[in-house]
Amino acid sequence: MATKKMILDLDTGIDDAMAIAYAVGAPDVDLIGIIGSYGNVLVEQGGKNALKILELLGATDVPVYLGNGHSSTTDHFDVMPISAQIHGKNGIGEVELPEAKRQLETTSGVDFLMDAAKQYGKDLILVPTGPMTNLAEALEKAPEIADEIGNVTFMGGALTVEGNVTPYTEANINQDPEATNAVLTSPLKSTMVGLDVTMRTLLTRKETQQWRDLNTKAGTAFADIVDYYIDAYEVTNGQLPGCALHDPLAVGVSLDPSFITTLNLNMKVTTDEGTRGRTIGDQARLNDPETNVTVGINVDADRYLKTFMSYLTGLFAKH
Amino acid sequence: MATKKMILDLDTGIDDAMAIAYAVGAPDVDLIGIIGSYGNVLVEQGGKNALKILELLGATDVPVYLGNGHSSTTDHFDVMPISAQIHGKNGIGEVELPEAKRQLETTSGVDFLMDAAKQYGKDLILVPTGPMTNLAEALEKAPEIADEIGNVTFMGGALTVEGNVTPYTEANINQDPEATNAVLTSPLKSTMVGLDVTMRTLLTRKETQQWRDLNTKAGTAFADIVDYYIDAYEVTNGQLPGCALHDPLAVGVSLDPSFITTLNLNMKVTTDEGTRGRTIGDQARLNDPETNVTVGINVDADRYLKTFMSYLTGLFAKH
Repeated sequence: MATKKMILDLDTGIDDAMAIAYAVGAPDVDLIGIIGSYGNVLVEQGGKNALKILELLGATDVPVYLGNGHSSTTDHFDVMPISAQIHGKNGIGEVELPEAKRQLETTSGVDFLMDAAKQYGKDLILVPTGPMTNLAEALEKAPEIADEIGNVTFMGGALTVEGNVTPYTEANINQDPEATNAVLTSPLKSTMVGLDVTMRTLLTRKETQQWRDLNTKAGTAFADIVDYYIDAYEVTNGQLPGCALHDPLAVGVSLDPSFITTLNLNMKVTTDEGTRGRTIGDQARLNDPETNVTVGINVDADRYLKTFMSYLTGLFAKH
Repeated sequence: MATKKMILDLDTGIDDAMAIAYAVGAPDVDLIGIIGSYGNVLVEQGGKNALKILELLGATDVPVYLGNGHSSTTDHFDVMPISAQIHGKNGIGEVELPEAKRQLETTSGVDFLMDAAKQYGKDLILVPTGPMTNLAEALEKAPEIADEIGNVTFMGGALTVEGNVTPYTEANINQDPEATNAVLTSPLKSTMVGLDVTMRTLLTRKETQQWRDLNTKAGTAFADIVDYYIDAYEVTNGQLPGCALHDPLAVGVSLDPSFITTLNLNMKVTTDEGTRGRTIGDQARLNDPETNVTVGINVDADRYLKTFMSYLTGLFAKH
């Protein structure tokens, strides 16, 4: 089996850090680059966090590019207070990691993405787990990549459950509804890993304790970082027995779609004030036999969690 | 195979009239009664319409009971102008049918439902295709019927598509969100046939012309009634190639669940002002292994439509 080429486009972020670890720890992935996005943190902070996490995990050969620093309809971005509450002001649970030796790339994240689509085509897996701003820009500049990229699996949206920013809006989509709508109504085929499945895929202190017990730098750091996230979940989602594995679930599904059960649906994102940022079936294309979004509506959380722990614990044991 | 005992709880209504015809025309159904509800029309009008449709179809042995005339949280009901536009002021497309010889029953619809649940239990199929007010009242008065009724398949709600009253609210749920929420959060197991599937199950003038060509009273009357509905759809849903078979699809699914593909989900109905009447996954019960609602998310519209036409055309040919 050919090794899969993967790009992560994320706003690191605690669950983003776990997504990076999943991609680095999975046995059959060549992580060819990370695109830093704004969202949980400012874009520069997210890029630096990605570099630090990669270095912590021994993946110092992975380049990190910066994507857009704000949405497609604004010229500025401020981190929402709730994001800082959940991920910490520094994005990784106030844990201080050493500065990475590697620097951010000077090529823009969007250019990197367009080039990689040309170079790898069907062998390329793109996993956007932040706002869709970079992908939307790439599709606008080079519409043909919609047919070139082999696999786009994104974390975002909420179809059968309520949002986490408003009752109809999930945080990633909320950052840039127009960009997500452009992506979902384009010819690009994608898989949506939204709150429908991520809120069913939970990590607890039992698992972070296993990392802590490794007594490695990575195990201790990830236990500290993710415990901060679990603490925050106890405040914001007190009824849940753990924290949601949003971004790492998207990486897992991109490699093994059988983790989720799905619905094929033509979707849109509403951009009007009333329900801004809602991911919902597009009535105008409801009866098209051809659909372009595969939406996760249920998940084999037990099997996913076993795989997740196997990859991450195995990786943390070595670093 | 034992003949199934069926109760329809509906607000007749044009698609309700087709639902009655489906139940009368299906080969293995004993329609033991109809409960008239408010909604498309006032409750008395709906009850009278049901009697007229039954008489037109030769089903003069089916009793019609009146249910509640307004929602569980109001003491009055007015028909919405859009309902009159879609179904006609008289509810059946301004077609004048002869007065039925049979009278409305004097027993209340809710008492009839509670009695039937005791009498038939698992052999009983209940198909509510209007507001849930009567079922909610029955469940409040006799909670044990939640475990007794064999099959509850309702038309209402919208999970993966937008509503038809507001972007999040479907018309039946909109009439009484509190009642629907009480039903969906009760132990009662039910199947939801919402806009997700009914807006994919369309009837066109090609089919009504087949009824007209029968040259029977029922064929002509139903062609006239449903053409009124198709006319209205051209105004309200111009992009669709026909009218949605909302209520008759619920009857079909109650008899053959394999018409739809489904998602098992614990649901709630929001009753706060912002998204009042939205049918959505209940976060508090998202990770319960036990679920009580089976939601239709896709439909084999071709096979359903063939069955629908077989039952209705066969019935209209004889009357």
